[in-house]
Amino acid sequence: MMTLYGYWRSTAAYRVRIALNLKGISAKQVSVHLVKDGGQQHTPTYVLKNPTHLVPALELADGTVLTQSLAIIDYLEALQPDPALLPSNPVARAKVLAAAHVVAMDIHPVNNLRVVSHLTDAFGADAEAKRQWMCHWMDKGFAALEQMVAKDSRFAFGDTPSLADICLVAQYYNARRWGLDLAPYPRLTEIEETCLALPAFAAAKPEAQPDAE
Amino acid sequence: MMTLYGYWRSTAAYRVRIALNLKGISAKQVSVHLVKDGGQQHTPTYVLKNPTHLVPALELADGTVLTQSLAIIDYLEALQPDPALLPSNPVARAKVLAAAHVVAMDIHPVNNLRVVSHLTDAFGADAEAKRQWMCHWMDKGFAALEQMVAKDSRFAFGDTPSLADICLVAQYYNARRWGLDLAPYPRLTEIEETCLALPAFAAAKPEAQPDAE
Repeated sequence: MMTLYGYWRSTAAYRVRIALNLKGISAKQVSVHLVKDGGQQHTPTYVLKNPTHLVPALELADGTVLTQSLAIIDYLEALQPDPALLPSNPVARAKVLAAAHVVAMDIHPVNNLRVVSHLTDAFGADAEAKRQWMCHWMDKGFAALEQMVAKDSRFAFGDTPSLADICLVAQYYNARRWGLDLAPYPRLTEIEETCLALPAFAAAKPEAQPDAE
Repeated sequence: MMTLYGYWRSTAAYRVRIALNLKGISAKQVSVHLVKDGGQQHTPTYVLKNPTHLVPALELADGTVLTQSLAIIDYLEALQPDPALLPSNPVARAKVLAAAHVVAMDIHPVNNLRVVSHLTDAFGADAEAKRQWMCHWMDKGFAALEQMVAKDSRFAFGDTPSLADICLVAQYYNARRWGLDLAPYPRLTEIEETCLALPAFAAAKPEAQPDAE
């Protein structure tokens, strides 16, 4: 069986949990607490598995460890192609990937816990400055994403959930956590609601995880 | 013919230029100056093509516009599979993607021009504070990447350039630009040298572009 090293509040781990659920692949979950003990992602045993000091990591049955949420999901897509998380048409596929990357590249890395903590170390940012920083990048990304998703499909692109939906739903968790005004993004909000009505998404929610506090 | 909207110094555009060259696909280049005129990426005509206000964007012959460098390269891989930028074995592929994502997700977004500029707007960061910010994230990413690439292959993984090499070489340009000490990363430095000896990489260099200043 696979082992997913994650943390309930990590939106990158949340993406992998959704993908595993959609594809019906079971994995044992191991919690890597990002704050306790100075951050368990920095322990020597974890860093041997994942030298980036980040979650998630997916350990396969043979001990191979995969890192980076979107690389892990790419592997799951090859392992279990059905249901597909990306269209087969190259242009359609690039459009879904681009939407996913708005979250995974333009928003999430800039709002990562370690980056936001470094704002305090480097510039003395207080809690409110950090919240504003996070909302600033979410607003920019969501404004683009609202334009990029399909206008009248059930999910972000088409009638089945894709990688774009996975990234969007995970980022929306953070948006709600940090109090972002979501009124400017009616289409994204509608997609989130559609997704969370599915058991695969609902079971992957941070608050549904064994290590949720 | 395709049109690549980019900027000589954008390392995301640099990645796409390398991929186009490796695959022998020609594209007309249009420069989107990221500083002049308050940033040409914010002009209404460009934002209609790319709502993220970022470069690059690739316009296909039929007018379809693709955005996000790694989504664009994914499209190019489907359009012209040879030479392959990713291995076909799912685990090997996920490892190359993960290495590419260390640059494309963990380093580059946090060091993006707009993010670093925002450090000044939000926290009054001066030039040296911004340089330190950039070097901090490059160091963290490169330290992981040095462990992740293959120890004894010609390129990052194997005997041919992959997406990991593309991302690494582009990020190394920024590392040199901002004066990062590269001594701790002998393997990455060796890979960069091997890559830049190839015409496909050399012709894609920022300083070789028509809009280089």
